[in-house]
Amino acid sequence: MQTKPGVKRAFFYSIVSLTLLTGQSCTTKEDAQPDTRSTTDFLYQYSIITALLAGVFDGNLTFGELKKHGDFGVGTFNRVDGELVINEGKQYRIRSNGSVSEVADHDSTSLAFVKFFKADSSFTVQTAGMTLDQLQKMIAATLPINEIYAIRIKGTFSKLTTRAPAPAQKPYPTLNDHLAKSQVIFNLTNTTGVAVGFLVPTYMEKVNVPGFHFHFLADDRKSGGHVYDFTATQVTVEIDRTKGYYVELNTNTDFGKVTL
Amino acid sequence: MQTKPGVKRAFFYSIVSLTLLTGQSCTTKEDAQPDTRSTTDFLYQYSIITALLAGVFDGNLTFGELKKHGDFGVGTFNRVDGELVINEGKQYRIRSNGSVSEVADHDSTSLAFVKFFKADSSFTVQTAGMTLDQLQKMIAATLPINEIYAIRIKGTFSKLTTRAPAPAQKPYPTLNDHLAKSQVIFNLTNTTGVAVGFLVPTYMEKVNVPGFHFHFLADDRKSGGHVYDFTATQVTVEIDRTKGYYVELNTNTDFGKVTL
Repeated sequence: MQTKPGVKRAFFYSIVSLTLLTGQSCTTKEDAQPDTRSTTDFLYQYSIITALLAGVFDGNLTFGELKKHGDFGVGTFNRVDGELVINEGKQYRIRSNGSVSEVADHDSTSLAFVKFFKADSSFTVQTAGMTLDQLQKMIAATLPINEIYAIRIKGTFSKLTTRAPAPAQKPYPTLNDHLAKSQVIFNLTNTTGVAVGFLVPTYMEKVNVPGFHFHFLADDRKSGGHVYDFTATQVTVEIDRTKGYYVELNTNTDFGKVTL
Repeated sequence: MQTKPGVKRAFFYSIVSLTLLTGQSCTTKEDAQPDTRSTTDFLYQYSIITALLAGVFDGNLTFGELKKHGDFGVGTFNRVDGELVINEGKQYRIRSNGSVSEVADHDSTSLAFVKFFKADSSFTVQTAGMTLDQLQKMIAATLPINEIYAIRIKGTFSKLTTRAPAPAQKPYPTLNDHLAKSQVIFNLTNTTGVAVGFLVPTYMEKVNVPGFHFHFLADDRKSGGHVYDFTATQVTVEIDRTKGYYVELNTNTDFGKVTL
């Protein structure tokens, strides 16, 4: 969603604090980074979504290496064995049995989107109940279109629905065929935690996931996963406007065998 | 073109020398660059093709800054005032009057694709006459699909057709409307020079130019432009396999005003 839709105001909310992105603040940030070779303020991604959709479920980048590219983000694991959440430099895996564990440096990923997160703006909302769609429209309404944003949502959710897939077996099917058979849905209630993710423009649709895309991790580290929907009662939203993105291609031989 | 079509052999050619890309040679190259944050072996691009197509003809990156991202590549100028050729660190502009000049560091670009060129493989062809399409098929037949390559073609051309656009005036039209009215075609004969460019997979189609894309510069620095077609008699092809690409978004306010 890259348009600026009107925010539905049928629900009750109060914005406790709000700092908007301005040209001035961004200029200041860029001025502080005169080295244009720096990729610190870029989204980094390993492989592309189209490859995962086509069944390229193994990659050659370790999570130890991935840490060099970002301290925040989402992704998956080789064999699609769970959902990845990275927040404040810590990498977590949510498996299809609902377990949450820290990721081993020597494990590898077939797809990951990360960034060194540094908020350019933030706001807090208290509400009787705001859906994910409503919050996304509210976020989009504050942002210049056609750009790429890392977004962190911390707060309390009366309802939150996630999923995590069981690992695939070779020969790998397409991602949609695999998810249809193997994903497990988690219906969480009255949970606190953090949703981390990105807002990506449609011109990246074959490379990343266009629109909003979040993975959740509960504060008690006992639940999480790819976010389908939620109803929030109190959330703080932090937004990190990027300068662009870079893609490292998957060097697994399967990458060269599929039609992308 | 990312498939591996059969090379048409109706024309006569002899391959004088040929080194193919192998997994081994690439592993060696990557081993020499243990810093995974390095973007030296990545294609860098400023802005995206969809923005130029939509009429975003001004950008904020100077050619002095662009040098930090690559010593080889193609692109255009603000107002679409000519075609850019970068080879061996030197930046040239071919204008619609046919003139060739070195680019000033303080000028800016609205779209550029560059890399630090380092050939991973090369081959030389002598032929009674090989078209651009035939040579492209020959190149593609040697390369793993789904990847991004920088390609340099040096040699002698019995025929070579290029174009360069005159600068646009505000309010800017779409690129296709502008080219229809303003581009000038150059039909060169018996010229020697270098065609620089890239082979880009279709999943980058909204970001870069899918397939092959070359700009030409004559050895005598008296002609050049965006390559439409050629007939080559003797060419050396050098191929630089990239690890991926990165995109720096155009910070011009027009970028946030178009539907991409």
